[in-house]
Amino acid sequence: MENQEVKLVSFWVSPYAIRVEWALKLKGVDYEYIEEDVFNKSPLLLELNPVTKKVPVLVHNQKPIAESFIILEYIDETWKQYPLLPQHPYQRALARFWANYVEKQLENSWIAMCKSGDDKERTLNAAREAMERVEEEIKGKKFFGGDNIGYLDIALGWISHLLPIWEEVGSIQIIDPLKCPSLTAWMTNFLSHPVVKDSLPPRDKVFVYYHNMKKEHSSA
Amino acid sequence: MENQEVKLVSFWVSPYAIRVEWALKLKGVDYEYIEEDVFNKSPLLLELNPVTKKVPVLVHNQKPIAESFIILEYIDETWKQYPLLPQHPYQRALARFWANYVEKQLENSWIAMCKSGDDKERTLNAAREAMERVEEEIKGKKFFGGDNIGYLDIALGWISHLLPIWEEVGSIQIIDPLKCPSLTAWMTNFLSHPVVKDSLPPRDKVFVYYHNMKKEHSSA
Repeated sequence: MENQEVKLVSFWVSPYAIRVEWALKLKGVDYEYIEEDVFNKSPLLLELNPVTKKVPVLVHNQKPIAESFIILEYIDETWKQYPLLPQHPYQRALARFWANYVEKQLENSWIAMCKSGDDKERTLNAAREAMERVEEEIKGKKFFGGDNIGYLDIALGWISHLLPIWEEVGSIQIIDPLKCPSLTAWMTNFLSHPVVKDSLPPRDKVFVYYHNMKKEHSSA
Repeated sequence: MENQEVKLVSFWVSPYAIRVEWALKLKGVDYEYIEEDVFNKSPLLLELNPVTKKVPVLVHNQKPIAESFIILEYIDETWKQYPLLPQHPYQRALARFWANYVEKQLENSWIAMCKSGDDKERTLNAAREAMERVEEEIKGKKFFGGDNIGYLDIALGWISHLLPIWEEVGSIQIIDPLKCPSLTAWMTNFLSHPVVKDSLPPRDKVFVYYHNMKKEHSSA
């Protein structure tokens, strides 16, 4: 039982934290969910992750681990059931490559869509290019992991539920369904997965959250 | 022998590419070194890494892998001799965490030290804070990997030979030897390691390279 003392310090709308939830659920690992107020960080978060002070933090037997991709690797190495990364080193490298690439290309999209000017267009075009490249990777497959959800599905999963809300709030388009039909189909497949559909934050609440965020950022 | 067809597309002064060289040398893997002109990218690089178009690219049996940290994982998974990452998942997570954290905190230092203003100071202070945090990690150890060079030593290794040159060229200080005595000792230990000392680019050539880069960036 000691091996099962697992806590997740999270934030309900974080695209990073929800990955960790999906991984734990796919593995069948029970955990205690601890909601963090990221706008007024708790002593607990500052104690567990004094370096970057960010969620998610996974705490396994009192030992904290930060950064979502690193937590996913830890989970995959610690609980062997339902492997997330592919078995072959080359396939593992590709999954990690695409996860990192999309993260870098899209992480500024949210801020960019609150702004205007050349920077906005450059950032959004980089995001669109990333989606078109990912389209090539998912073509002919149900999930990036093949027939089942794997590491890359979890890494990109937020695209299926948060990105459409960003697009709506920001009145922009990042994923063009005509250019990315397979990615669009993947989004539907991903959202239909039992582990995913039961763990998503309510759409209307997320919409209001980002709508308010946009107002704040635009006037900043 | 097929398993040993290894090529590395590299750039002589890249802090990212030299990590991969160190890893291959520590593992005793023979490879063909291919110098890339990063200012006038070759058709080979664009074919091997069309997505980010960056070095290093490791090519193993015709299969290209990009991004230095991902290549290090691939190398460690493919050639089991001389393990780079620690064995325990938690220690592995820590090594990955510190490698990523320092990368993020220091990657803008070079550009920042060519500029002036608030942004420069903010970036340099973030770099200095990172070094002081890393000091706590290396305290009491010869290498981050313990008695031997490991993943985190390789990830941070460029600090020992390139960062002092950046500091000199930019007339700034990022590592304060009084605040970071253990890190300073590590730099010396790292530079004395046979694999490292025989693979470093000539100091005077690196100095001229960054001196010229600074002139270009400052006037840009």
